[in-house]
Amino acid sequence: MSVDMLIKKIKEKGNPSVAGLDPRVEYVPEYIREKAYKEYGKTLKGASEAIWEFNKGLIDALYDIVPAVKPQSAFYEMYGLPGEEVLHRTIEYAREKGLYVILDVKRNDIGSTAAAYSAAYLGKVDIDGVSEEPCPVDAVTVNPYLGTDGIKPFVDDCMKYGKMIFALARTSNPSSSELQMLVSGEKMIFEHVADLIGKWNGGTIGENGYGAVGAVVGATHVSDAETMRAALKNAYFLVPGYGAQGGGLEGVSKCFNDDGLGAIINSSRGIMCAYKKSEAGDAAFADAARAEAIRMRDEIVSVIK
Amino acid sequence: MSVDMLIKKIKEKGNPSVAGLDPRVEYVPEYIREKAYKEYGKTLKGASEAIWEFNKGLIDALYDIVPAVKPQSAFYEMYGLPGEEVLHRTIEYAREKGLYVILDVKRNDIGSTAAAYSAAYLGKVDIDGVSEEPCPVDAVTVNPYLGTDGIKPFVDDCMKYGKMIFALARTSNPSSSELQMLVSGEKMIFEHVADLIGKWNGGTIGENGYGAVGAVVGATHVSDAETMRAALKNAYFLVPGYGAQGGGLEGVSKCFNDDGLGAIINSSRGIMCAYKKSEAGDAAFADAARAEAIRMRDEIVSVIK
Repeated sequence: MSVDMLIKKIKEKGNPSVAGLDPRVEYVPEYIREKAYKEYGKTLKGASEAIWEFNKGLIDALYDIVPAVKPQSAFYEMYGLPGEEVLHRTIEYAREKGLYVILDVKRNDIGSTAAAYSAAYLGKVDIDGVSEEPCPVDAVTVNPYLGTDGIKPFVDDCMKYGKMIFALARTSNPSSSELQMLVSGEKMIFEHVADLIGKWNGGTIGENGYGAVGAVVGATHVSDAETMRAALKNAYFLVPGYGAQGGGLEGVSKCFNDDGLGAIINSSRGIMCAYKKSEAGDAAFADAARAEAIRMRDEIVSVIK
Repeated sequence: MSVDMLIKKIKEKGNPSVAGLDPRVEYVPEYIREKAYKEYGKTLKGASEAIWEFNKGLIDALYDIVPAVKPQSAFYEMYGLPGEEVLHRTIEYAREKGLYVILDVKRNDIGSTAAAYSAAYLGKVDIDGVSEEPCPVDAVTVNPYLGTDGIKPFVDDCMKYGKMIFALARTSNPSSSELQMLVSGEKMIFEHVADLIGKWNGGTIGENGYGAVGAVVGATHVSDAETMRAALKNAYFLVPGYGAQGGGLEGVSKCFNDDGLGAIINSSRGIMCAYKKSEAGDAAFADAARAEAIRMRDEIVSVIK
């Protein structure tokens, strides 16, 4: 079970956090950018190669202390085909280093198209009898708006290939409440989503009591995090909103179960751009990222029951 | 205004339909596949090059009779990086041929990440002072689950660069009702989404009375199509579910306004795989696609008020 592999990595590192790799080119230290521009120009290729050098340095600095990384697809698609290529290279490199890779894509579509997305990232594709893995990762994020038959193809691949998904439930952005907090019956929409997640997750429980279908739960909404935790004892939570998005420790602490498991907390900019707050400067970006990842680890571990 | 350009193309061709380019390799005629496999093997690259030949043949056969094409990103992501490359090539070729390109990606994320997705497909990306267009299309589909601040970056780019978006509202899959038809207050969730779409669309109305923010409305649900049409007079509808998904003509007819505008109807497999029902065989795939596109055009035009 993929979730058990994630838990194993979390326990080994004593660290329930995930480093987000959301590399806008502005985040990349100047000397790395200049080198890439010299070779490839200020082009999509130049920006992408700068991002690759940055990502590689971050992964090298973090792989022995964090269990997982979460590349955000948008920030690679934004640099066109060269960006996509660097996303694939980053995923491959991170997995080689033993990191659990959660690809943040928030994909969603009707059944047969959802199956194509799932084949792209979790499963396999058949090419006239030859099986290929287009872009293998350990987990992806998905959007639940289309209901069960948009999610089931992913769940099937989770079971077949040992993977995980995290479905959006209560997101951390200000306007998330417009739909997610509408009340229907006695529950808000995100609670109905939680019920669906519980149903999808039900048949996938592994040896640690957690299943293959997790939830994305924003740490900025403390009471909603509590509601979700109570509703979904067996689901792992992927928690964005720590640090840069203003998410507090209190919300984070509510996302864990009494067993000290059940959540993995993401920080992207806080780790990637730590060097901008450091006196050591650009060249020490990897050290600064590592120091921030350790600080974050210790802070999160301190609030787990 | 992008929607006015779409309407111009629809009027020029007398055809309110869009050809979906959702090319699983199994859909590609065997002789094209064999040729690609001979050169590239049964690999992601081989499958992708077969798809490219197929797409090119379809576009050549269709560009003077249909106003728009809709590539479904999942079926390119499914073939890894070579698939992505063929998606970019297909988009570029279709736009060269004067087709309006709606990229079906159903992207969604919080504000700054939504902005990155929008930059990828609708806008521009800044690389230390140099502006690039990573993958320019005319319109994308988006998922509304995160609310206004996940959509606004797209709307801003629509206004800035003359583009469109189509937001999911009532989808055509069986389990779409699980969330979309929950009742909150006096409305179902998809009607609340319709209200949001109306709000986002409100400030973007062009010379034909339609705005830059359209809706994806499944043709399989006749009364819901009516509800949506009544609620969103100024929004263009992208209507999947014609033909292969079992969508009937009645639902399609309800998606148009009294001006004969307001909807563009998608068929993917029906057009792409028309050759499989034709006696002329594989080599006539382009003729079969063209014949089916004409049949579909005439059928749809016949039910517009």
